[in-house]
Amino acid sequence: MFGVASSYGSPIGSIAPTENCMQVASKPYSRAPLSEELSAKLAERFGKRYSISPGVCLQHGQSETFYPSFPPDAVVFVQSTEEVEFVVHHCAAYRTPIVPFGAGTSVEGNFAAVHGGVCVDFSLMNQILRVSAADLDCTVQAGVRRNQLNQHLRDQGLFFPIDPGADATIGGMASTRASGTNAVRYGTMKENVIALTVVTPTGKKIVTSRRARKSSAGYDLTHLFVGAEGTLGLITEVTLKLYGVPECIASATCAFESLDGAVRTVVETMQMGISIARAEILDDAQMRAINRWSKTDLAERDTLFLEFHGTERGVGEQVELVSAIARENGGGDLQWASAPEDRTRLWKARHDALYASVGLRPGARGWATDVCVPISRLVECIALTKQDIARSEVTATILGHVGDGNFHVIFVVDPASAKEMEEATRINDALVKRAIDMDGTCTGEHGIGLGKQEWLGLELGDAVELMRDVKRALDPHCLMNPGKIFQ
Amino acid sequence: MFGVASSYGSPIGSIAPTENCMQVASKPYSRAPLSEELSAKLAERFGKRYSISPGVCLQHGQSETFYPSFPPDAVVFVQSTEEVEFVVHHCAAYRTPIVPFGAGTSVEGNFAAVHGGVCVDFSLMNQILRVSAADLDCTVQAGVRRNQLNQHLRDQGLFFPIDPGADATIGGMASTRASGTNAVRYGTMKENVIALTVVTPTGKKIVTSRRARKSSAGYDLTHLFVGAEGTLGLITEVTLKLYGVPECIASATCAFESLDGAVRTVVETMQMGISIARAEILDDAQMRAINRWSKTDLAERDTLFLEFHGTERGVGEQVELVSAIARENGGGDLQWASAPEDRTRLWKARHDALYASVGLRPGARGWATDVCVPISRLVECIALTKQDIARSEVTATILGHVGDGNFHVIFVVDPASAKEMEEATRINDALVKRAIDMDGTCTGEHGIGLGKQEWLGLELGDAVELMRDVKRALDPHCLMNPGKIFQ
Repeated sequence: MFGVASSYGSPIGSIAPTENCMQVASKPYSRAPLSEELSAKLAERFGKRYSISPGVCLQHGQSETFYPSFPPDAVVFVQSTEEVEFVVHHCAAYRTPIVPFGAGTSVEGNFAAVHGGVCVDFSLMNQILRVSAADLDCTVQAGVRRNQLNQHLRDQGLFFPIDPGADATIGGMASTRASGTNAVRYGTMKENVIALTVVTPTGKKIVTSRRARKSSAGYDLTHLFVGAEGTLGLITEVTLKLYGVPECIASATCAFESLDGAVRTVVETMQMGISIARAEILDDAQMRAINRWSKTDLAERDTLFLEFHGTERGVGEQVELVSAIARENGGGDLQWASAPEDRTRLWKARHDALYASVGLRPGARGWATDVCVPISRLVECIALTKQDIARSEVTATILGHVGDGNFHVIFVVDPASAKEMEEATRINDALVKRAIDMDGTCTGEHGIGLGKQEWLGLELGDAVELMRDVKRALDPHCLMNPGKIFQ
Repeated sequence: MFGVASSYGSPIGSIAPTENCMQVASKPYSRAPLSEELSAKLAERFGKRYSISPGVCLQHGQSETFYPSFPPDAVVFVQSTEEVEFVVHHCAAYRTPIVPFGAGTSVEGNFAAVHGGVCVDFSLMNQILRVSAADLDCTVQAGVRRNQLNQHLRDQGLFFPIDPGADATIGGMASTRASGTNAVRYGTMKENVIALTVVTPTGKKIVTSRRARKSSAGYDLTHLFVGAEGTLGLITEVTLKLYGVPECIASATCAFESLDGAVRTVVETMQMGISIARAEILDDAQMRAINRWSKTDLAERDTLFLEFHGTERGVGEQVELVSAIARENGGGDLQWASAPEDRTRLWKARHDALYASVGLRPGARGWATDVCVPISRLVECIALTKQDIARSEVTATILGHVGDGNFHVIFVVDPASAKEMEEATRINDALVKRAIDMDGTCTGEHGIGLGKQEWLGLELGDAVELMRDVKRALDPHCLMNPGKIFQ
């Protein structure tokens, strides 16, 4: 997959392994040498846009997270769907693995070339092909980054809301079914991709859907590829829903007496059907980290970061309702960031939360969990996890997209300390099992990648066999991003 | 598939064939006799809930639409997922086709037993298993009907918005990716199914997803089965999103000087991001039919039926904006149906639109098209279609869910008249081709079934081959609702 942003905001230094991840690191992945014939063909076709330089390969194998480096044997910088067809066609002929790469910001080892092969870098496929203000949609090449898209759209009064924090590519975001801070109102990539152009494992281009907003025409191939992490084919173009920039945007923070109260406020807001645009929770530890990192002077208590979108009147009404709910749950007054630059500063602080956490301990690394549970279980899930953290000696912060039931624990650990790593692993294992027991998922938005394959089995049981059947049918030689989602 | 409602409202008497449909009728489908051993096993297990009576079989093969009768060889009335596993397991052992049946209200021959076999009737699987007001979701057996669900939810202040008109089963609605009048605000079945329990072609039960509102855990199997028309497995339980009944609901009609103006009003409303709940268009011919059928005295002009959901203030604001847009486009004042009983009467008249159209000519039959286009092309698409109708001698009305870009032409024809049938076929062919040329679809909400298979190829080209690959992988002997979507 293309390398998709972690939802907490920013590319991360590196992260400590869970038990599973340590297994990943020591796994003896098979790796055949790159065919010289194939290499010559690619070199002939792509010239300088084809590289077997160790430096370039290393750069495309090094995840920003804790995973060990798995460099590909070659990298090709594609510029069109036709070029992707060429690459896939020839790699398939030589039974050579194909690994897509976007911005390299994913956090689950999603683009690690564990079996070597050819990395398809989409950074040059960065054209915005079409924007229709009338239809509120656009089509972009897979390598377009979300900030680039939003800058392009700004003059037309439009925006693309999905915000995983990092400046990921649209193709990568589609491939991991990414979401982020706005999902509570605008949905995830799943809800916002209308159609995809995909190069299948046979090297053939298909378009998964027409541009109509709804369709009952056959199997939903769009959603088969959204979240498939590049294991069924390479996404080369994406048609997305767009939204008008709201007439009124208001951001605020609200500090609480307890984490429970903050979570309850969001849960009750959701249950009342109030269409809040962002509802992010940051616990007291996270707030301390943010103040240090971002030089802010926010209250160092469990806090909600809120955003409201709508008409002036609509926003006023939402604010009134949410303020009342917050008060009932031990929240203080809403602290407003009204000017656009204040809003930007606020959300930058939020997006830097992981950096801020890791900054708490010099030399430490961050490791983020990603469970998502039904919101009725969220208060309990977070409270139990907070207890586990309090009872341990591990430093950890909590933040998350609570309106979706999704939150991240960021363990701030010294990977060299076996004791700390064991503690974090123990807390993480308990958290994931708890989430699955609550009918939740091990991953709300980061994907399975390399490290969560066992959890996938625990979560979905025999349904994983059906996924394997689909994989085998479309990619019988297992050449598309092999080793991801399942072995 | 389970037999899903047509979106124009009500079960229909019968409908005239297109050219494709006439081909369907004359196609020599293969049909092996039912194994006596299998029949004995099913009879032993299900007793009176198993039937080979010709009357029962005929009842399960007769579509409410124009398709010829394709009765199954036997019908089994299941009560649980385990029973469905039993049926599928044993039918698979005897290579016997399995055809699911819900309310029998679908319009594309979706449950015709063209190759015979065993019909699985879900009408006894009608338990509402769980409702969570806190999570705004519920889980129901596949045979629960949408009106039953909404009656059950009423006391809790909740509702399930998807409204294809007919009182279809939830399983059937999932299987055809149904939508209807509320989709413009609440989405289609695609957006509202959280998870499914499915019995796969091997007779094994799987659950496609946990109950969390978002997940990146592997392939999106939920959406693979939503819209698969029962060809990949049988849906036995469905977890759905629910919504709080809005504080304020207001319905109105608005008559226009021209159809263009009415369509433009909805398109501009959508483009302004106004979250209208229903925006249905009915042309002058349809309005005349409705007045005759429903004894109403609405203006016999091109008319919008509108509904607004929200808080008092929010609805007031929406109404103000939409009224202004309507005036600019030649619309009159909004005529309000404020009391709940007036609203019910208004929407019943809308839902009876097809009956009303067919009632225009004694002995005639209705035939509904189902294209959906990007809304920027909607004015042109409807205008050209209206011209085609005006230039022909065919009686036809137009109505549709214009906020989605989806509309239906209802041809009111005498199937015995070759000339009329040719005219309707010609107009329909032109309409579907026009919609696909506009990057739209041949079916917004009815499904492919038996009659639109050629259009599916025209619409999605090589992507259909990928669908076939998936079908072959999951159902290699083509036993699950064979002959639907593709041969």
